[in-house]
Amino acid sequence: IPLSRTTRCTCIKISNQPVNPKFLEKLEMIPASLSCPHVEIIVTMKKSGEKRCLNPESKNVKNILKAIRKERSTMSP
Amino acid sequence: IPLSRTTRCTCIKISNQPVNPKFLEKLEMIPASLSCPHVEIIVTMKKSGEKRCLNPESKNVKNILKAIRKERSTMSP
Repeated sequence: IPLSRTTRCTCIKISNQPVNPKFLEKLEMIPASLSCPHVEIIVTMKKSGEKRCLNPESKNVKNILKAIRKERSTMSP
Repeated sequence: IPLSRTTRCTCIKISNQPVNPKFLEKLEMIPASLSCPHVEIIVTMKKSGEKRCLNPESKNVKNILKAIRKERSTMSP
């Protein structure tokens, strides 16, 4: 008998609107787990503090990850 | 006259010990900003809830990112 488990993902809705990496305060990646069967990507916007869930397989997410990791000490004030 | 700003990064110390992607509860990426001039990678460990800062340019971080994004609905209970 399979155990029934409560599935509880953080994201209810996934935004398809692309996000500009410049306006991100933070990006969170939550790996698949017992409580949610798929990876989740949650971004926090700089000014509003608004959180949005993005599609982990989208081109936008790939670009964001690349952009964040490329920034080093090249940030101008 | 350059303005003096308080630099406040989240990470004080960066761990060089490699982390297994399987044991991660969450990964946070904080882009470079006025308060911290370089990108920060903070992982939260599953059991302990312990947080660790990792080197964004390390091979370990690259592997973690790849591993997390590859997990989809392939998680077995």
